Parts: sequence; C-alpha cells; structure tokens
Amino acid sequence: MYPSVLGLLSSGLNTLMARSSGKGEVPTLILSACSREVIRVSFLRRDAASQEIKTTVVYPATEKHLQKYLRQEVHLIRESWEDYKNITLPFIQSQSFSIQWVYNILEKKAEADRIIHENQDPSNGFVLVPDFKWNQNQLYDLYLIALIQRRDVKSLRDLTGEHLPLLKNILQEGKEAIVKRFGVPGSQLRIYLHYQPSYYHLHVHFTALGYDAPGTSVERAHLLADVIDNLVLDSSYYQKRALTFALRADEPLLKKFQEAGRV
Amino acid sequence: MYPSVLGLLSSGLNTLMARSSGKGEVPTLILSACSREVIRVSFLRRDAASQEIKTTVVYPATEKHLQKYLRQEVHLIRESWEDYKNITLPFIQSQSFSIQWVYNILEKKAEADRIIHENQDPSNGFVLVPDFKWNQNQLYDLYLIALIQRRDVKSLRDLTGEHLPLLKNILQEGKEAIVKRFGVPGSQLRIYLHYQPSYYHLHVHFTALGYDAPGTSVERAHLLADVIDNLVLDSSYYQKRALTFALRADEPLLKKFQEAGRV
Repeated sequence: MYPSVLGLLSSGLNTLMARSSGKGEVPTLILSACSREVIRVSFLRRDAASQEIKTTVVYPATEKHLQKYLRQEVHLIRESWEDYKNITLPFIQSQSFSIQWVYNILEKKAEADRIIHENQDPSNGFVLVPDFKWNQNQLYDLYLIALIQRRDVKSLRDLTGEHLPLLKNILQEGKEAIVKRFGVPGSQLRIYLHYQPSYYHLHVHFTALGYDAPGTSVERAHLLADVIDNLVLDSSYYQKRALTFALRADEPLLKKFQEAGRV
Repeated sequence: MYPSVLGLLSSGLNTLMARSSGKGEVPTLILSACSREVIRVSFLRRDAASQEIKTTVVYPATEKHLQKYLRQEVHLIRESWEDYKNITLPFIQSQSFSIQWVYNILEKKAEADRIIHENQDPSNGFVLVPDFKWNQNQLYDLYLIALIQRRDVKSLRDLTGEHLPLLKNILQEGKEAIVKRFGVPGSQLRIYLHYQPSYYHLHVHFTALGYDAPGTSVERAHLLADVIDNLVLDSSYYQKRALTFALRADEPLLKKFQEAGRV
C-alpha cells in the first residue's frame, strides 16, 4: 500500500522510533506498523510540567507526512575557543535566557520539598533535584539534575582547575545521595554535562545507564569524570580545546555561525 | 487489561522503543500499543551480514516477559591506564577475536567492489566501506566504516601523536569521499571511534548526524576530531586518561574487572 514507508520501516524501525530532539517539548516521531497494511505516525509531545503525553496520530500517513517529520536539518559545529569568544559568548549575553527558576530552587522559593541532596557551600556546593522528565514512579528512566550554588559558571567553557572541588563534590555526593535514596549504585549512572546546555547555569545530569535519555550522544554529552580528568591534566583544557555540537536549522546560534562564515 | 504494561507505556513509550544495546546482534526491545487493549512486544535481531531483521512478537505480553527484557544489567567501568595494562590488554590478547574479515577487505579478497575510498599508504592509509548495517538505499541511516591499513593499532588506547597523519587522513578524505559519492557534507556526519570497540583493529565510524545509530552515546563514542585535538595537546593522552565504558553482566571482560576488585 505504502511501499516506501514499509521500506523505511523494515530497514530502520528502531531508528525511527528512537528519534528524539533532545529538548523537552519538541515533537518526537514514532512510526509503528500494526499490520502490513496499517502505518501509524504519532507525534508525541511530552509536557514536562504535568507528565502528560499528548499524541497526534496521522493514519494512514502519506510520504509527505513522513518527509516533513523525518527531515532533521542539523548542522555540526566545531567551535574553537576563538569561536566561543567571538560568536557564542556574545550570543549568550545578548539573549535574555531566564534562569530565575534555577535561583528559585537554590533559594528554596520553589521545589524545596523535592531536594534529594544539598551542599550549601557557596563556592563548592550544589542542589540535587529530580528532573521534571522523571516521575519517580520507576527507576529505569531515573533522571536527576545537580544545580551549582555559584552563579558565575555558565557552561563547560567556563570550567578550570579552580572548579575541581565543586565538580568532585557533585560526582561523589551525587552518587552517594542517589544510592542512598533510590538504591541505584554509581556504576549504573551516566553522569554528564551538555554542551551546548539548554540553560547557562552550570548543571550536571544523572541518568540511569540503561536509559537512552535524550542528549546522551557524543556530540552533546560530556562525562563529568572525563571533565574532571581533563581539568587535572590541564587547568585550561576547556579554554583551549575545540568543542563539537549540533544545531538545528532554526536555532539562532546557527545563524551567527553562518554570518561569521564558520559553517 | 494489562495495567502495569500500559503504565510503562504511558510514561516511557519512546524510551522503551529507543532501547538498544549498542552492539550489532543483541535483541532490541520494541513495545508498541496498537490499541488500548493490545500490547505487542517485539524482539528485533539485526543480522549484520544479511541485512535481515528477525522479529519475535509476544502478544499479549505478560509482566514477566517485560521484566525479562527490560532489565539491562550494565555496569559502567572507569578504566585507568593501569587497568588497561593489567586487565583489559591481557584479556584482549587471550581472546581469539578473528579479524581475518578485516584483512580480507584490506587485501581485496572480499568486498573489493564495495570500497568507497582507499588510501594505500601502509602507515597512514585506510579503506572506507559501507557498514553492513546500511543498505545504501537511503541516506538517513548512512553508515560507513574506515579500516586502517596498518595492523598494529588495536584501539583508542594505542593511539599517540605518531598516528596524527593517519587520523587526519581519515577525517579529511573520509568526508571528501562521502560528499562526493553520497552528497552528504561533513557538517551532517558524526565521525567517531568506539571504546571498547567490537573488534580490535582500529576503525572509525561515519554515521548520518540525524541518525541515532547504536553506540553513539557518550559512554562509548569518541569523536575523531576530539581524539585528534587531544593527541595534539598531549601525544600520550590516551595512555594517561581513564576511559569509561559500559559492560553487560554477561560480558567476560566484566568478570575480569570483578576478579581484580575494580567493580
């Protein structure tokens, strides 16, 4: 009936199902064949606040539907330190990304009852909270976030040897708190930073190792243990090394790199 | 009818679908709800050699079926250089991993007609071939492998500054060959090594950036551009730095780490 669709399914079923944008509220395409004649295309929206999943089913799907949602125009950027200073940093500073919600958690104005662990040291402390993507009803998709107390570290790019005590606290105390509360040992946890992050207040992701969380792929995730070792080897490692990340065609930062002739 | 199953589905549909072992021939679990009353559990096996996908459907699935296949016992290993020398290297040497199929490609005894690009230099050359997981009928799951000509480099752990010309050739010529043959530019490619690799003859993966290929997550993949930059910073970077990887409970190497008291 729809041979091109069936062709895609037979060669790439789990791929299509695995497609995810890596950002909370963007549609995820799920293709599934309930029988040889029936193709369903679902667009899932996960609502972080309510834990609801909203689904639109297009059935049967035409080739046009598939093309529209399959085409992920993404560009890989290799950002040198110069690029960061000349393109990315001015872009971040020009944006009014609100991180008031982070400050509200740190100041106990919000989510105080959700805190799993806290180290109040103003330089080397952090707060560990469950991510909103995790409903805490089961452990296979365990997802927590460590938010640092200090407010002067935007991302991986700002980290130097100075921050080693902070990073080691997050790694050590985060693992201890998670095994204590949830019984999941450190050997079952993927602990990492994103670059680019979705907000510019340094935070660390803790996810269950068996869980293919969005944003765990090599072009976005940086293991905290690797970050620590790199800073031990060279305190200014992240002010030297080029970093790779992917940008979708509609992201304003891509335009900045294009204008600078770097894409 | 199966409320616990439906509960899983409503909270983690795309997760379950995305589950993948990261290795070629291991079952992948796909859960899908075709209606509120019907749950299908499929175990996909992808046969790398024949491009066939074999599927077993359990319908309706019991809680026991789900538990059996959902529980991925994986352990994260943080392998220091000492661990590599004392545990991993002796293990690799004790195994009779056959890589004759790699030599057959390099010697044109097999797949000579599939070669996309070749650099015959014995030290700094390589052969680029489509991976067997890619049928070449479409570009979204593009997957090629570069196999190096020299036979004395097992993995990332062996790389030093000496190998920079080789690695730069793979990065540069690989990208050029792929845009020329398939029209996919370098900014759309994820180019990386695995550690641990599935065979110990150094090879580099080229996959379409929009494609969630197995083994692209941060605990297994290392971007070639990062590897090159690390070796430029420090020729013995990969003989110093601890490296993280995940092992399933049934993998013999895990047992070696357990016997050594390192897990």
